[in-house]
Amino acid sequence: MEDRTELSSLGEFALIQRLIGTFTNEQDSTIKGVGDDAAVIGSGEMKTVISTDQLIEGIHFDLSYMPLKHLGYKAVAVNLSDILAMNVVPSQIMVSIAASNRFSVEALEELYLGIRTCCEVYKVDMVGGDTSSSTSGLVINITAIGFEKEDKIVYRSGSKEGDLICLSGDLGGAYVGLQLLEREKSVFKENPEIQPELDGHDYVLERQLKPEPRFDVVRQLATIGVKPTSMIDVSDGLSSELFHLGKSASLGATIYEDKVPIDPATMLASEELKMDGLTSALNGGEDYELLFTIDQSDFEKIKDEKDIHIIGHMTDQGFHLVNNVGQQIELKAQGWKAFESS
Amino acid sequence: MEDRTELSSLGEFALIQRLIGTFTNEQDSTIKGVGDDAAVIGSGEMKTVISTDQLIEGIHFDLSYMPLKHLGYKAVAVNLSDILAMNVVPSQIMVSIAASNRFSVEALEELYLGIRTCCEVYKVDMVGGDTSSSTSGLVINITAIGFEKEDKIVYRSGSKEGDLICLSGDLGGAYVGLQLLEREKSVFKENPEIQPELDGHDYVLERQLKPEPRFDVVRQLATIGVKPTSMIDVSDGLSSELFHLGKSASLGATIYEDKVPIDPATMLASEELKMDGLTSALNGGEDYELLFTIDQSDFEKIKDEKDIHIIGHMTDQGFHLVNNVGQQIELKAQGWKAFESS
Repeated sequence: MEDRTELSSLGEFALIQRLIGTFTNEQDSTIKGVGDDAAVIGSGEMKTVISTDQLIEGIHFDLSYMPLKHLGYKAVAVNLSDILAMNVVPSQIMVSIAASNRFSVEALEELYLGIRTCCEVYKVDMVGGDTSSSTSGLVINITAIGFEKEDKIVYRSGSKEGDLICLSGDLGGAYVGLQLLEREKSVFKENPEIQPELDGHDYVLERQLKPEPRFDVVRQLATIGVKPTSMIDVSDGLSSELFHLGKSASLGATIYEDKVPIDPATMLASEELKMDGLTSALNGGEDYELLFTIDQSDFEKIKDEKDIHIIGHMTDQGFHLVNNVGQQIELKAQGWKAFESS
Repeated sequence: MEDRTELSSLGEFALIQRLIGTFTNEQDSTIKGVGDDAAVIGSGEMKTVISTDQLIEGIHFDLSYMPLKHLGYKAVAVNLSDILAMNVVPSQIMVSIAASNRFSVEALEELYLGIRTCCEVYKVDMVGGDTSSSTSGLVINITAIGFEKEDKIVYRSGSKEGDLICLSGDLGGAYVGLQLLEREKSVFKENPEIQPELDGHDYVLERQLKPEPRFDVVRQLATIGVKPTSMIDVSDGLSSELFHLGKSASLGATIYEDKVPIDPATMLASEELKMDGLTSALNGGEDYELLFTIDQSDFEKIKDEKDIHIIGHMTDQGFHLVNNVGQQIELKAQGWKAFESS
């Protein structure tokens, strides 16, 4: 018998390393390949910034509580967020859909309506892709593209010790929204007569079902003349993203509990679910906010900016949270694992 | 009850029209969106030419006779071919894979080995993508990218009446190879003791299992100073591609049976399978040769070029084959239908 290593026995990063670690780049037009939110390629002055993502039914989304229109919108939004995380405004997407015969034409129209709505809101053009059948379920692949001069592009790896850590918006809402939807799904499974109890939770549900890519933040930074030293979007949770920024620069980070922005609606829903709001913010993911570092000399420019919060600073090593009574707690990255056995 | 239209009730083109016909483009950087082999986007002198394709197990490939290494190679090759069909040499790809737990790490390594081999042969960089789990089967999405000046890019739609129709290589082999593999699969199903009878069919099997993208043809055209007036790659069969070139220019086309290049090995295998070699060439698909038109003034430059065949000319209307006894036969497009019910 040949060796057989189960996919679930390796973590996401170890698996990717094993599969693509032997690839090398030969083209002068490859400026940044694998390893950031997007690749940077091209030979002219304007570089092409490009990212692709595949969403699989039953793995990345659950149609029992995700309406198809929202799914289409979200699929586009999260891909646009990858380009924004390079400090670049995306301008085009390509969309490939595979659907089984379980889906009607009308169902796919709902999906594409969501895709089109997101394109219209953010003035992004859909320039290609395909639609084909699938043997089971729904698969969505979106490629997002933007164009920018090389000196404007921001990578994960550029931070220096002492740089200030900034975050747009607030965290934890998308994860708490997901927990609410999961709770209602299991209640419904046990008793389909019971109406879902989602009243008063509009904010966290919208954070989960209809995340908005932060075009405004990238434009805001350009307006005030701040180029971050590093940037990433919060897809896997604040802790995990802090680790990406720190490790790629061989640094650590310290953040402060009282600076981590959490919306009151997120705290309220967390309490109802008997969850800790801060844990949701640190490990929840899917908020698609922008996490970035700036040089201390940019502090004056950014300190009064709306919806941007300074939550800590880069250190020489270690990842820590200083809690509200001044204790320093070690952070753990608990991002989503693609092949986790459950 | 809401209306329910089955996906299988619409053809591929009608479905795509219904799903994305309402999308509009707003970006100045969108030069060509949906409707060609690839999109052309970008704001600088060098344009980005980009195409994406999704391959689904059980729909686009059958692992019972397609080794994973070949599948990886072919998935890359056919996507590179879409960029070459714009007269552009591709330089990067992005790869997203979703695989169920049925696949081991070693199996995915085979797949990526094929991907890497094709990248190395054609000096194309793999710059991104992701690997995730799937609830069933294998899904491969590849995005291919190239960079070129706008005036070098060739579209499907540029031909004029009287332009000569040219074709690289030969046709029908990939389809005949597929029929051989299908035959052996059904023989094997009935009696697993019987060894496959594939001896002597290396050529058509290789055409099916390991198609080569025609980088050489795009480079050859640049060397001899010929810019085609229109171009497409042969993925769905010669007839279907001729229709694309003709209809996009509001023209027709006439080709000649004795000019359609078919390899002797393809003819031999066709006979063994009791199939008509010409029909395989016209309707078979998956040869990934380049079909293009040139201005008559370029005839002298191209007439002695190796592996390029002049097979007919563009007319004012109608699609015809002139057979070997001089009869004019109407061509029918019989391309692959994505949602055909079977």
